[in-house]
Amino acid sequence: MKKFTSVSDVENLQEIIKKALQIKENPLSESEKGKGKTIGLVFLNSSLRTRLSSQIAAQNLGLNVLTLNAAQEAWNLEFADGAVMNGDTVEHIKDAIEVLNQYCDIIAVRCFAGMKSKEDDVNESILSQFEQHAKVPVISLESATRHPLQSLADCITIKENWQENRKPKVVLTWAPHIKPIAHAVGNSFAEWMQEMDVDLVITNPEGYDLDKNFTKNVKVIHDQDEALKDADFIYVKNWSSFDDYAAMPEVKENWMLTNEKLKNTNQAKVMHCLPVRRNVELSDEVMDGENSIIYQQAKNRIFSAQAVFSEILDELNS
Amino acid sequence: MKKFTSVSDVENLQEIIKKALQIKENPLSESEKGKGKTIGLVFLNSSLRTRLSSQIAAQNLGLNVLTLNAAQEAWNLEFADGAVMNGDTVEHIKDAIEVLNQYCDIIAVRCFAGMKSKEDDVNESILSQFEQHAKVPVISLESATRHPLQSLADCITIKENWQENRKPKVVLTWAPHIKPIAHAVGNSFAEWMQEMDVDLVITNPEGYDLDKNFTKNVKVIHDQDEALKDADFIYVKNWSSFDDYAAMPEVKENWMLTNEKLKNTNQAKVMHCLPVRRNVELSDEVMDGENSIIYQQAKNRIFSAQAVFSEILDELNS
Amino acid sequence: MKKFTSVSDVENLQEIIKKALQIKENPLSESEKGKGKTIGLVFLNSSLRTRLSSQIAAQNLGLNVLTLNAAQEAWNLEFADGAVMNGDTVEHIKDAIEVLNQYCDIIAVRCFAGMKSKEDDVNESILSQFEQHAKVPVISLESATRHPLQSLADCITIKENWQENRKPKVVLTWAPHIKPIAHAVGNSFAEWMQEMDVDLVITNPEGYDLDKNFTKNVKVIHDQDEALKDADFIYVKNWSSFDDYAAMPEVKENWMLTNEKLKNTNQAKVMHCLPVRRNVELSDEVMDGENSIIYQQAKNRIFSAQAVFSEILDELNS
Repeated sequence: MKKFTSVSDVENLQEIIKKALQIKENPLSESEKGKGKTIGLVFLNSSLRTRLSSQIAAQNLGLNVLTLNAAQEAWNLEFADGAVMNGDTVEHIKDAIEVLNQYCDIIAVRCFAGMKSKEDDVNESILSQFEQHAKVPVISLESATRHPLQSLADCITIKENWQENRKPKVVLTWAPHIKPIAHAVGNSFAEWMQEMDVDLVITNPEGYDLDKNFTKNVKVIHDQDEALKDADFIYVKNWSSFDDYAAMPEVKENWMLTNEKLKNTNQAKVMHCLPVRRNVELSDEVMDGENSIIYQQAKNRIFSAQAVFSEILDELNS
Repeated sequence: MKKFTSVSDVENLQEIIKKALQIKENPLSESEKGKGKTIGLVFLNSSLRTRLSSQIAAQNLGLNVLTLNAAQEAWNLEFADGAVMNGDTVEHIKDAIEVLNQYCDIIAVRCFAGMKSKEDDVNESILSQFEQHAKVPVISLESATRHPLQSLADCITIKENWQENRKPKVVLTWAPHIKPIAHAVGNSFAEWMQEMDVDLVITNPEGYDLDKNFTKNVKVIHDQDEALKDADFIYVKNWSSFDDYAAMPEVKENWMLTNEKLKNTNQAKVMHCLPVRRNVELSDEVMDGENSIIYQQAKNRIFSAQAVFSEILDELNS
Repeated sequence: MKKFTSVSDVENLQEIIKKALQIKENPLSESEKGKGKTIGLVFLNSSLRTRLSSQIAAQNLGLNVLTLNAAQEAWNLEFADGAVMNGDTVEHIKDAIEVLNQYCDIIAVRCFAGMKSKEDDVNESILSQFEQHAKVPVISLESATRHPLQSLADCITIKENWQENRKPKVVLTWAPHIKPIAHAVGNSFAEWMQEMDVDLVITNPEGYDLDKNFTKNVKVIHDQDEALKDADFIYVKNWSSFDDYAAMPEVKENWMLTNEKLKNTNQAKVMHCLPVRRNVELSDEVMDGENSIIYQQAKNRIFSAQAVFSEILDELNS
C-alpha cells in the first residue's frame, strides 16, 4: 500500500480485514517491523480515538511516534498557494510538509473540512497538499470528505458481528445535531460499504442527501421508519446539507435513534464513530443497551490503523 | 492493588514505602514488568510534577504511555448523567472512559475539584464516574478531595528524613493564597499521616477547618505559633473554607511561613507539594533554606508513582 | 561538552560537524548510548523543527524523552527574583528548574526573547536562570539572543554544499517582515560563521544593525545588491532594530530575496531557518527553486541535535 486516504488505496478489502483480525488476536506479532522508522501524526483538529489508537498501533509495530498538535504547538499555517504571507499565517503548509518529509518515514494527518467553502472541502484543499508535496506515504486520519481508518474499523466490526449466510441489511441513518457537521464519516461509510457484501440503505431528511459521488447507486430513503425496517446494522451519524452546503434545513420528524425505533429492525446492532451527543443523536438507552457495538467499534480503530501501518511498512521495506 | 484513589487502597503502608525506597535505589529493576501494557494518563487539569513523574515511572517499568490533555486535544466533556447534549459538550465522560477501557490496561486521571458545587466535589463527581465505568484499574493523579500519589511521596520523604527513636511531630499548616484553592492535598495528607507513626497537628485560621471526615480525631489548633512549637516537620498548604464552601474568610494574622517562625520548632523540615507561591505561602528564605526538603519531596513523586504502578501490574499479571 | 547554549561551548567545531555528518550516515550507530537516561524538552514557545528534530535525535540515542509545553500543560511561570507571587503567576521558574533537576539527566529549553525589555533579553533573563539553577547539562533550543542548534545545522549544511578549494562568500541578509522579530538566529549565525572558514558579510537596512557583540569585525553593508554580489551562500532572515529595541524603522527599498537578485551571485545557495513568510521574506520562486537548500538545512537539525546530545552524554557517562 503506497498511501491510505480512501478505499481505492486498498488492494483487497477482505484481505486487509482478515489481517486486522489477525492483529487483534496477536497485536505484538510484528513488534519489530517498524524499528528505526518514524511516523508523524499531525493533528490540525481535535482527536481522542484516532490519536490514541494510532499511537498504540504504531507502538505495537515498533515505530517511533512523533505527535504534533500543529496549531497549538507549532505555527499558524497558510494554505493558499502563492499567498503573500503578510498576515496572521506564519508557515506555509507546503514548507511544513517538506520538513515532515525530512523527519518522517510516514506522515499521517487529520484535516477536517472547514465547512465554509464547498469547493475547498470537496477538493480536499489541505489533504491534497499533503498528497502533492509529501515524498513519503500519506495516511488520512480524517480529511474533509473521508475518514477511511474509521471506515475500515467499521468493516472489521461488521465482519465480526455477522455470521449468517446472507447479506446483512446495513442502514446509514442521519441523526440530529445542533451544529453543521462535516460529511466525511457518512461519505466514507457509504463508499466502503459499497465494497462490502452488504445491502446498504441510506436514510436522511429531505435536503440532507450526501454527495452523489460517494453514494452512487445506493438507495436513499427519506422515511427513517421505512429504511430501518429489518435492518441488521444501523450506523448513526449526523451531517449538514451538502447541496446547500453546511446549511441545516429544518427537520420536522424526530430522527434521534431510540429503542422504540429498534423494534422494527432485525435486532439491529447499533454503530457510531464517536464522539456522540447523547439524547440528541441517539438515546441513552440505545447507547447503553445491548444492541450497541459502539465501543467494540472504537477498539477496532487500533487494528484498523495497525493493519494499514503494517501494509505501508511492507511497501517501505520492499 | 486493584486501584489507587485513596489510602484505603493500600494494603500495607510500610511495605509500599519500603518498596518505593527500593525502587529509588534501583529504578530500572523492573524494567520489563509493564512490557506490552499501556497506561493512559488523562489530564483534565494542569500538571508538571504529576505529569513528568508518572511518565518516568511508567517508562521505568517498560509501560507504553499515552498522555492525553483531554480538554485541549480531544473533546469538551459532559459530566451530567442523562444530559441532553444539545449544548457545548461534545462527548460524555462515560463514553470517553469506555473507550479508554478499550485502549488502556491502566487508566490514571487528574480531575480537580470544580470549587463551585460542594456536593459535586465531596461526591467526587468526575472520579466516581471513572470508578464506576472503568473496567481496568484506576489511579488518581489528584481528584476533588484527595491527592494520594502526593501523600505517598510525602510519607516516603518523612521516612527518609526521620531516624530518631520517637514519633515526629508533624504539623500541617494552612498558608495564605489569593484564590480559593481545593482541599485535596490537605485532606489527603491528613488521611495518610493518620496511618503513619507520627503525631499530627493541623493548624489553620478559624473558618478554615478541613472536612471532619478526613481529619477525624486530629488535633486542630487555630494559633499557628502554638501549633508549630517543637515541630519536626511542617507541611505548608493553602485551602479555602470547607464549611462556607470555597469562600475565603478574612484572616488577620500573617500565616506565611518564615524563618522567624521556624525558630520555635525542632529545626523542622519544611514540605510543600508545589507549585508554591513564593512570599505568599512561604518566604524565599524558607524555600531556599536548608530546612526545605521540598525538592526531595518532588523527586519522590517518581518512586511513589512507580511503586503504585508496580503493585497494579502485580495484580494485572496475577 | 558540559552544556550547549552558544558556540563557545563547542570545543572543536570541525570535529562536531564531522561527528554530525557521521551520524547522518548512520543515525542509529549509538542507539544504546542514552539508555536509562532522560532528556526534558521544555517549550516556553512554539516549535516545529526544534521539537521534532530533538525528539528524533533523542530517540536515536535511546534517551527517554519528556516533552513539556510549559505554559499550556503546567503552570504560569514567574521569572522575577524575589517576587511576591500574589498575581497571575503560579510557579517560580527556579522551582520548576529544581524539579526538572530531580527528573532529568539533561534539560533542554526554548525561551524566546520577550521583545519588551532590551535589558531582559540581552541578559537572557530566562536562560540565565536555567544556567544558574540547573544541576544537569542545559541545552538551548533557542533563547533570547542565540539559536545554537540551528547554527550548528547551518554549519553542517554549508560544509555539505561546499567542495571548492577557496573560502565561500556567505551573506547574511535581512529580509522584510510584518512584526518585530527577535535577533537570535541572526546573532547566532554571525557568531558561528566567524568560527568557520568563510568570508561573512552581513547586509541590512540602516537602523537594523545587529548587536556588535555578535558581529564584531564582520563587514556590514547597507546596500543589499552590493552585498549579494558573488555570494556563494545567502542566509535570509528578518530581525527588528537592536539599537531602537524591537522597533521597525521604515525601509524604502525592497529587501525580499528574488530570483532577479540571485543573478549577481555565484549561483548562491539560499538558506533560511524556517518558518518563512513566503513572498515577504523571499519569493515563491526562490523557495521552490533549485538554489534553495532550506529543506536540507531543516533535515540537518536532527544531526545537529544528535551530535550535541551525544557529546553531552559522553560527559555524563565519563
